[in-house]
Amino acid sequence: MDALPSDSWLSRIRIVLVGTSHPGNIGGVARAMKNMGLFDLALVSPRCAPNERDAIARASGADDVLANLTTHHTLAEALTGCTWVVGCSARSRTLPWPMVTPREFAARLPGELTAGGEDARVAIVFGREDTGLTNDELQHCQTHVHILTNPQFSSLNLGAAVQVMAYEAHQCWRDHQDIRDEHSDTPFGIEWDHPLATQDELEQLFVHMERSLIALGFHDPENPRQLMPRLRRLYARARPDRMEVNILRGIASAIEKAKR
Amino acid sequence: MDALPSDSWLSRIRIVLVGTSHPGNIGGVARAMKNMGLFDLALVSPRCAPNERDAIARASGADDVLANLTTHHTLAEALTGCTWVVGCSARSRTLPWPMVTPREFAARLPGELTAGGEDARVAIVFGREDTGLTNDELQHCQTHVHILTNPQFSSLNLGAAVQVMAYEAHQCWRDHQDIRDEHSDTPFGIEWDHPLATQDELEQLFVHMERSLIALGFHDPENPRQLMPRLRRLYARARPDRMEVNILRGIASAIEKAKR
Repeated sequence: MDALPSDSWLSRIRIVLVGTSHPGNIGGVARAMKNMGLFDLALVSPRCAPNERDAIARASGADDVLANLTTHHTLAEALTGCTWVVGCSARSRTLPWPMVTPREFAARLPGELTAGGEDARVAIVFGREDTGLTNDELQHCQTHVHILTNPQFSSLNLGAAVQVMAYEAHQCWRDHQDIRDEHSDTPFGIEWDHPLATQDELEQLFVHMERSLIALGFHDPENPRQLMPRLRRLYARARPDRMEVNILRGIASAIEKAKR
Repeated sequence: MDALPSDSWLSRIRIVLVGTSHPGNIGGVARAMKNMGLFDLALVSPRCAPNERDAIARASGADDVLANLTTHHTLAEALTGCTWVVGCSARSRTLPWPMVTPREFAARLPGELTAGGEDARVAIVFGREDTGLTNDELQHCQTHVHILTNPQFSSLNLGAAVQVMAYEAHQCWRDHQDIRDEHSDTPFGIEWDHPLATQDELEQLFVHMERSLIALGFHDPENPRQLMPRLRRLYARARPDRMEVNILRGIASAIEKAKR
């Protein structure tokens, strides 16, 4: 498992929470952030203390994020040094504003951070548990982001909303890494334990399989129906490795032996 | 804001939680599900009660998901009727298994649900807060999904993990609203001739297969090595349809008859 480099651009994403009420939510946010390689947390006029028991319990080891958070009286202060500010908004507003999905947000991140220079930060601003962000606060944001949800039950938990945004940022960062695990390039998505069988090994398997099924009395070559094509299709989809071919041939041999 | 149609295929996704300890997590999962239009929650041997105060508080209005959840003694029972079972796995295992990202999982959903027929369910299985899923439980899954995280702090909260998977499913559902091709969209890229086998049909197949291989003298349960896990993995990749399961069970019956 690779390490997250300390100079990852993920560390330049600031999560800003406005007027949070529940310490447990601050802890949940800290955990979601650290899980996805984000560390910069800013609180604006919190309505609870971020070092309460519930915050530490829900942070579940992301104590460093809690210890290093900053607290601000105004949103403007919390956004110092940020070149792109994105406000999380559940509702449509009277005044339309540029809007992205979380995925579009993530896709724009590398360019925004490059454009902003080495010290630039991108902020994602989240509102109060009950009333969200005010219109004035949303107008501090260049862009709004809306997480599509079930319209009949649309209000995400604060930690869940941060989780979605941080997840999208993290996946984008992964996609931009040029260092690719050289082994994961199998049809199965991960390094495999045995090499795939070759086409000729598979042909030998099918010959052996058919012979054993005839010996077993299960397959009648005079009335083959679609048995062998169906078995071929089944194993073709599975892409057997060499060990699996050996197992299937072992079974075929045992059948032949039993019938001898 | 549009409504979520009650026949959305999102309602055919089952979230399965194995051995959950904290009622608050069950509540958080219920909320994350309902936010994303998922309603089918199954618990396997929970180590807490899903109607405790913390569960209801964290569900925050997703009471209907809690009220309708089902509880099971075994994972196999919770997977009845499911045609695609995906296990959430943080660790790499000794026996490699087909692996997808959450986004790849979502991309495959419409096809999997089409292939399984109208009653088919897709299950996503999540393990215990402390120890995840056992190897045996992971081997009940056709596919594993791994959420990429900060390698130095990789353990997601249970609700957060469900949130990520449900979010990906929901976004995919949204993306597919306008473009519907009901037939070419199976796991195999074309319309299929038989419905996919359900998880319980596959379990019965494995029981029958094992019994016949013991009768054949090929498999020694006292010295099983990795035979059954390897066969499970092979057929998990192939995603057998119902006709193929019938063929394989026919072979197993013929073997038993030959040895009688």
